[in-house]
Amino acid sequence: MNKYFDICATTPIDARVLSFLNEESKNVFGNPSSIHGFGQKSKAIIERARINVAKSINCSPSEIIFTCGGSMSNNIALMGALKKGDHFITSSYEHPAILNVIPFLKRNGINISLIRPNKDGIVDPSNVKNEINSKTRLVSIMHINNEIGTINPIDEISSITKEEGVLFHTDAVQAMGKVVIDMQKGDIDLMSLSGHKFYAPKGIGILYVKDGTHIKPTLFGGGQESDLFPGTENIINIGAIGLAAQICHENLDSNISKIKELDDYFIELLNGSNIEYVINGLNRVPGVINLSLLNAKSSAFIINLDRKGFAISAGSACASGASKGSHTLRELGIKSQLMDKSYRISFGKLHSKKDIKSLFELIKKSIKN
Amino acid sequence: MNKYFDICATTPIDARVLSFLNEESKNVFGNPSSIHGFGQKSKAIIERARINVAKSINCSPSEIIFTCGGSMSNNIALMGALKKGDHFITSSYEHPAILNVIPFLKRNGINISLIRPNKDGIVDPSNVKNEINSKTRLVSIMHINNEIGTINPIDEISSITKEEGVLFHTDAVQAMGKVVIDMQKGDIDLMSLSGHKFYAPKGIGILYVKDGTHIKPTLFGGGQESDLFPGTENIINIGAIGLAAQICHENLDSNISKIKELDDYFIELLNGSNIEYVINGLNRVPGVINLSLLNAKSSAFIINLDRKGFAISAGSACASGASKGSHTLRELGIKSQLMDKSYRISFGKLHSKKDIKSLFELIKKSIKN
Repeated sequence: MNKYFDICATTPIDARVLSFLNEESKNVFGNPSSIHGFGQKSKAIIERARINVAKSINCSPSEIIFTCGGSMSNNIALMGALKKGDHFITSSYEHPAILNVIPFLKRNGINISLIRPNKDGIVDPSNVKNEINSKTRLVSIMHINNEIGTINPIDEISSITKEEGVLFHTDAVQAMGKVVIDMQKGDIDLMSLSGHKFYAPKGIGILYVKDGTHIKPTLFGGGQESDLFPGTENIINIGAIGLAAQICHENLDSNISKIKELDDYFIELLNGSNIEYVINGLNRVPGVINLSLLNAKSSAFIINLDRKGFAISAGSACASGASKGSHTLRELGIKSQLMDKSYRISFGKLHSKKDIKSLFELIKKSIKN
Repeated sequence: MNKYFDICATTPIDARVLSFLNEESKNVFGNPSSIHGFGQKSKAIIERARINVAKSINCSPSEIIFTCGGSMSNNIALMGALKKGDHFITSSYEHPAILNVIPFLKRNGINISLIRPNKDGIVDPSNVKNEINSKTRLVSIMHINNEIGTINPIDEISSITKEEGVLFHTDAVQAMGKVVIDMQKGDIDLMSLSGHKFYAPKGIGILYVKDGTHIKPTLFGGGQESDLFPGTENIINIGAIGLAAQICHENLDSNISKIKELDDYFIELLNGSNIEYVINGLNRVPGVINLSLLNAKSSAFIINLDRKGFAISAGSACASGASKGSHTLRELGIKSQLMDKSYRISFGKLHSKKDIKSLFELIKKSIKN
């Protein structure tokens, strides 16, 4: 039974990706910068992966930069796009890999506007438009919020930024595998993805940089990855993220409908019970449910589940202090006594109705006791 | 037969580390920041690895920061230690992940002194001492040069910096597994290591930060790795580098003498032939031989070897332009017509006398034709 309901924190590695890892870790190891055969074999894996990733999001391979993860992609995008005197707009419920870059940007003479999401957990495009001024260089709004799963109107926001001549970045780490990502729609200039959120290994991420968009290098070394991410390439994990992107793309429609079904089923079970609950956020992606359980005994509740081997989350893992309470829920204006009883349940392609049922039964039992 | 003589560029993964990777990639995937069992299992792998690495270089686990590689460790060390108005001393034959940070540092108001190695490829400690002034904040000198294998007097240099109240960083990426690294000797404050240079996978590195040494964060996110390297930890590769460090440490003495024997054997074969050669650099570590072959037909030579499946290197892979010629040899004052005929041959614990012999025979044959 799959008792892991925290796929927004991280996913296990897809079985086909695991086979690739096992096979290629043994066979391929040359430094891709080496001109000999060992090096060129590694280089080929990287370039094949770049093509696979590009296909999966409908862009050109030249627009794909491999990094070591989503946080790194966010750092490189923001630091690379912004310089002293620029104005930067982002939302107040972004991932820490955006929000925690802000003090650094401020120290470097960049002005910041923070937009709060509305009470439903969505960033209103007109609020973005209102904040843009002549100094605005970059807007960064996450595609899907990592704590409540709400989907932002990225296409609309990016068409506003385009009109205004402003760069648009999106942290789409939670979007890959949950919604269609098509770079030919909307006007996204920069986008961050993370392998371990879509069944690739950890330690590998992607920065999409639209052809013609110039961002300055922020890290320095051997010039790898178009000078944006130096260091000997993590060839095996790059190959793995390429394969994971391909798998993700090929099965996207069926996975989305499957997960929607599981989501509906879970809500149906809740509604058929006497559990009092509120779902935080509207227009959320199926498979990410931020639930306030009015009768749960806060932290004891999650520990009870853990004792039975079931994993759900209080807030995001990345804020590395689930205990501190969710900054996303706070930005939505949710009262703190409710925040203490709010949990993120997230599931995906590897779950079944039976898994969902068993989680529901345990939640019901835990609330009762 | 092992035809790969480019272990300074990168090493294959040790068989025991491969088994670890295969096993744990399947079993462990939780986000180490999660409080549930899946997360805590991952956390345990990281902390066990930290202990293993610390043991292998005789320091405290709290002094080990996991990064995504040696280049990243170098970037974090330099950018984290230096601020506007500081003076920084380094050598002119460092790895690009040090040298290419310099223009960035200059733009940020840091003054630089570049020390040239002597003609034997060694940095003279008195030259370091002479450059230190009241503004000097950091000295960074590589432990072992990546192109010629010369060993710098790190202990002596670091005791000078300590006397002068200056921080000392060393890029020891080429040292791990080739010489004893003991953090209780000398006065090293910061040190960079890279997994894929000592039979761990790529995409994982270490920054040693001596307890009490404060460097400012340069990348921002969830606060992982003492705020110095944010992002969900690459748990499997962290576990792997821990195991690789342990293996490296346990077998260091026997590997060093084995490699010394192979090195002596190779030189003996050269001396017994009519091949005209010069070895660039004195006081070099066994297993790294930078050879000027006076009768070799430059690039055709290395291609001939590659055709037979043998890999050696012209310059370092990381300079990602072996064709541009070695910047190390240039700094040693070696003439360009000789540089064109210079090759780096590097071998390690996985090689045998038979391998060395077959490489020698092929070199002999290639020079003749």
